[in-house]
Amino acid sequence: MLKATQILGSCASGLVSKPRCSGGLSFISVSAKPLSYSSSSRRATSTNSSFLPKFPARGTRCLRPFHLPSTRSESNPDGGSASSVAVQHSAGNVRKINFCQWCGGPTKHEIPDGEEKMRAICTVCGKIAYQNPKMVVGCLIEHDNKVLLCKRKIQPSYGLWTLPAGYMEIGESGAEGAIRETWEEANAEVEVLSPFAQLDIPLIGQTYIIFLAKLKKLQFSPGPESSECQLFALDDIPFNSLAFSSMFVTLNLYIQDVKTGKPKFHYGTINKRPGTSPSDIHAFTLDYHLQC
Amino acid sequence: MLKATQILGSCASGLVSKPRCSGGLSFISVSAKPLSYSSSSRRATSTNSSFLPKFPARGTRCLRPFHLPSTRSESNPDGGSASSVAVQHSAGNVRKINFCQWCGGPTKHEIPDGEEKMRAICTVCGKIAYQNPKMVVGCLIEHDNKVLLCKRKIQPSYGLWTLPAGYMEIGESGAEGAIRETWEEANAEVEVLSPFAQLDIPLIGQTYIIFLAKLKKLQFSPGPESSECQLFALDDIPFNSLAFSSMFVTLNLYIQDVKTGKPKFHYGTINKRPGTSPSDIHAFTLDYHLQC
Repeated sequence: MLKATQILGSCASGLVSKPRCSGGLSFISVSAKPLSYSSSSRRATSTNSSFLPKFPARGTRCLRPFHLPSTRSESNPDGGSASSVAVQHSAGNVRKINFCQWCGGPTKHEIPDGEEKMRAICTVCGKIAYQNPKMVVGCLIEHDNKVLLCKRKIQPSYGLWTLPAGYMEIGESGAEGAIRETWEEANAEVEVLSPFAQLDIPLIGQTYIIFLAKLKKLQFSPGPESSECQLFALDDIPFNSLAFSSMFVTLNLYIQDVKTGKPKFHYGTINKRPGTSPSDIHAFTLDYHLQC
Repeated sequence: MLKATQILGSCASGLVSKPRCSGGLSFISVSAKPLSYSSSSRRATSTNSSFLPKFPARGTRCLRPFHLPSTRSESNPDGGSASSVAVQHSAGNVRKINFCQWCGGPTKHEIPDGEEKMRAICTVCGKIAYQNPKMVVGCLIEHDNKVLLCKRKIQPSYGLWTLPAGYMEIGESGAEGAIRETWEEANAEVEVLSPFAQLDIPLIGQTYIIFLAKLKKLQFSPGPESSECQLFALDDIPFNSLAFSSMFVTLNLYIQDVKTGKPKFHYGTINKRPGTSPSDIHAFTLDYHLQC
């Protein structure tokens, strides 16, 4: 189950902007900041979609940034629910960690020796409460030129459509987690066919890992967290009612692959557009899109 | 930095077993458990490399399980260091979470309503301390038909060779994290070229995300956690002295791709061999290997 995540989707248009390149060679000569590390600042530099990073030619590798205007507001419940706990973890607000979960001692918030990031450090036992991004795993289920979507019956994004997806658990692989989530949300038994996309969302500390999958039998029905499950033809995907930007991006990339007849693996970063405030999610970009 | 992780490598041989298939069509007729969800058990089933799961043909998709005999013992320091904290997190031992990190209340260990896994639940505020797998991000740096490796100057796996890699941080993308780790461990500035592999290790709750990268300039030197950094020709890679099974698998897959001249994205799961005890890491398999 996906108990808490970002709300960056959906877009008025079901189509992403026109690809800036169709192969691995198109942008070799384009001058822009690469995704690389600056020794002067010791910080990783990033390039938003206003620039076209230079990537060398390699197979079908292709950087294809595009803009995905969104129309929904980004918000998450912040009460005492499991969802909000997960959000706080994901967002990595170290100052919300007040006690050591191992010994119960109060924490201090400092940059440990040899590190560069603020951490919550136990003042009693000295242990550090590291926080790391979470993986959300899900399935893009193909059946008869349609894809399976679930309408959410829980917050966030109640009433909006999503691929079946949720947090990966310790003890399972990503593919196993995606299969489990599909069963939980759509009562559907699936086989994983191939990895399809990794989409990082640094702002909220989440990485989406999406697999292409197929139904083992033509049976599905809403699980406890879904009000509907439905197969959509690609032209009928409800892009105006998708739950998350990650789903919007995934489905658009899938449609592009179907149109070109070339299934690929996609890597990319979903970022807020530069200059927008953290609370303004009406604009985001898919940066560093690499495919192979 | 990679402060704590598994020690499953290395192998006496630098070569994986012969691929069982070279294309997406080879094993369609093989009967075995697929990576799928069983409605009868509501548990994800998994197939080890003794079986050949059936995956439908799709592009260059190929399931290619192989055995990677290892010669090192799996152990991690379990003291009060940051490393051990991270290991406890990764392993997902919920019973080690004794207190709520938000309010300091004692926890109980129960399966919450509507869930299936044991969680640590605060008896005061009711919040749940979810634990999830961590991502380890790193770079496989190509230069002049060689790859860059670092000799570890810290535990675990002191004195053994690894690709530069470490835990992904909240606020960065996977590629940015891989670039940062490369800078920290090898003082090398790199450009990410493409995603190369996702390797899940369910036993310890880690997922390796490896990117192909290139040096921006021919400069590298050991960072604080490395005693040496060296470019190795593929025939000279020290397979008998690698730090982690994930690195062993990654480098073998890379060599295979170089030999075939077809760079791919690889997904797979590194599992202990069935029937071996949790403390016996002398055998492991790469299961559900999918490539595209």
